Amino acid sequence: MQGDFSSWAKTHQSRFEQALQQLLPTADLAPQRLHQAMRYAVLDGGKRVRPLLAFAAGELTGASLAHLNIAAAAVELIHAYSLVHDDMPCMDDDVLRRGKPTCHVQYDEATALLVGDSLQTLAFQLLTEHHLNEDASKQLEMVKLLAIASGSRGMAGGQAFDLDSVGKALTIPELEFMHIHKTGMLIRAAILLGAHCGNVSDAQLSKLDHFGKCVGLAFQVVDDVLDSEADTATLGKTAGKDADHNKPTYVTLLGVAAAREMAQQLHQSALDALADFGDSAQRLRELADFIVFRKF
Amino acid sequence: MQGDFSSWAKTHQSRFEQALQQLLPTADLAPQRLHQAMRYAVLDGGKRVRPLLAFAAGELTGASLAHLNIAAAAVELIHAYSLVHDDMPCMDDDVLRRGKPTCHVQYDEATALLVGDSLQTLAFQLLTEHHLNEDASKQLEMVKLLAIASGSRGMAGGQAFDLDSVGKALTIPELEFMHIHKTGMLIRAAILLGAHCGNVSDAQLSKLDHFGKCVGLAFQVVDDVLDSEADTATLGKTAGKDADHNKPTYVTLLGVAAAREMAQQLHQSALDALADFGDSAQRLRELADFIVFRKF
Repeated sequence: MQGDFSSWAKTHQSRFEQALQQLLPTADLAPQRLHQAMRYAVLDGGKRVRPLLAFAAGELTGASLAHLNIAAAAVELIHAYSLVHDDMPCMDDDVLRRGKPTCHVQYDEATALLVGDSLQTLAFQLLTEHHLNEDASKQLEMVKLLAIASGSRGMAGGQAFDLDSVGKALTIPELEFMHIHKTGMLIRAAILLGAHCGNVSDAQLSKLDHFGKCVGLAFQVVDDVLDSEADTATLGKTAGKDADHNKPTYVTLLGVAAAREMAQQLHQSALDALADFGDSAQRLRELADFIVFRKF
Repeated sequence: MQGDFSSWAKTHQSRFEQALQQLLPTADLAPQRLHQAMRYAVLDGGKRVRPLLAFAAGELTGASLAHLNIAAAAVELIHAYSLVHDDMPCMDDDVLRRGKPTCHVQYDEATALLVGDSLQTLAFQLLTEHHLNEDASKQLEMVKLLAIASGSRGMAGGQAFDLDSVGKALTIPELEFMHIHKTGMLIRAAILLGAHCGNVSDAQLSKLDHFGKCVGLAFQVVDDVLDSEADTATLGKTAGKDADHNKPTYVTLLGVAAAREMAQQLHQSALDALADFGDSAQRLRELADFIVFRKF
C-alpha cells in the first residue's frame, strides 16, 4: 500500500476525470448542444465517491484500471443523470449543484431532461461495448446489477418514495427503506462492480455487499447531518432544503446527536465486514472513514 | 404461413400484452404510485409496431416466443419512456396520448419523470436478467445495440435535434438525419433484436438492417402525412401539433403528394431488401405494407 489516502484519491480522481472526458461524446459531435450539456453535467464536479469505491474494491480483487474506469464511469453516469433530473423544477427545483448552475438553468429544461435520459443510456452502453470480464455471462450480470440498483426497485424507486414522503411522518424503518434505495443501492453497486472487474469469490462478494450496504446508508445519514448544519457555500449546493421542503431526515427524526451515533455504528459495522481482507482493503476502510467523517 | 396478417397481428398483440403485464412491476409493489404509473404508461395502448417487427424478424430466424417477448418488451419500454418524457410540459406539452390523459396529467410531472427513467432502466434489466441467446457475448451485443439506438447518438439525440429545429428551416437531409435518429434507429433495433433471438447470418442481418432503415424512415414520413391530415379523434393524440409548433416535417418541406411518393419509394426499397428471404419474411413484408398504408 503506497502513499496516503489523500494522494491515492487525488491520483484516481484525476485519472478518472480524463477517462470521463474520453468516454463522453465530444462537444462537437451532433447534436452538439445535447453533448455539451452532458459534459457540463458530468465533468469537473463532485467528490467521485462512487468511482473511488469501485477503484478501492477493484484493488482488492486485482482488477485492471482500464476495466475499473469503465465500471466506475457507468456508475457515475447513473449518479449524474439522477442529479440532473432531481434538480429539475418538477422535482427539487434546485438552481445550484457542485457550485455551478444546475443543468436546466445553464441550458433549458428540455435539454436537461434529455441529458439525464442520455447519460443513463450511456452508462449501459459503456458496460456493454467494453470488454470487462473474460466471462461474458459475468459481464451480463454486471449490467443487470447496475440496472436493478438504478431502477424502480433501486435508486429511482427511492426518489419516488422521497417524493411521496414530503409532509408525511415517516418511521425510522421507512426512512431507512427510502435511503437504502435512493442512495444505498448505487453505492453498493459501485463496490460490487469494481470487485467484479477482478477475481472475487462469493464469500468475498457477500462481505463487500455488507460493507456497501453500511457505507451506503451511512453516506445518507451524514448527508442529512451536513445538510442540517452546513451553509450553502461549504456544501456547493443549496443547504437546508430538506427541512425547508418538510422532508423527513435522520436529523429531524433522531436529532443530530443520535444521527451521528448511527453513522458511527454503521461505520464500525462496515469495517467489521472487511476484517478478513487485510491490507488489500485499506483503501475501502479509508473511504468508509471519509464518508462518515467528511465535512462537506 | 398460416392466417392473414390481421389475425397474426392480433394474436401477437394479445399475447404480448400479457407478457408486458407480467414483466412490469405489479401495482401493489412499493413504491406503488410509481409502479402504477409505469403500468399506466405502457399497458393497454399503442399499435405495438416495434414488437410486431421483432416478432416478424424472429419468425425469420427461428427464435422462440419466450425470447422474443423479452426483446420486444425491452424495445417497447424504451419507446414508452420516450413518449412519457416527450409529452411533458418542458418538451411537447401534450395532454393526450393513445386517447388517454398523458402520464404527467394523470399523475404529476415528477412521477412522469421517474416513470420514464425507470422504464428505460427496466428495458436494460429485462435484456440482462433473461436468457436470450446461448452465447452470452451475443446477448451483450444485443444490449449494446439497444443502448446505441436509444442514446444521444440515437433516439434521444434525434429528440434533441427536434428541439433545436423548432422555427428553423431544415433541409431534407437534415430532416432525414433527425428522423433516422428519433424514430428510425429504435425501429431498426426492434428488427435486429428480434432476429438476434434466433440464428441469423451476417448477410441476413445486413439485409434486415436495410429493411429496418427503410421502414423506420417511412414510418416517420407517413406520420407526418397523417398528422397533417387527420383529426385528433382518429389519431388518438393531438393532431396538427407539428405545424402549430412550427416544426419542419416532410409535408411542410415536400408537400403531401411528394411525401406520399417518398414513403412508397422507401416501401419498395424495404421489400427489395427481403427478396431473398422467401415466405419466411411474409410478416415483415406485411408490416412494411401496414406502416406505409396505415390510416392512423
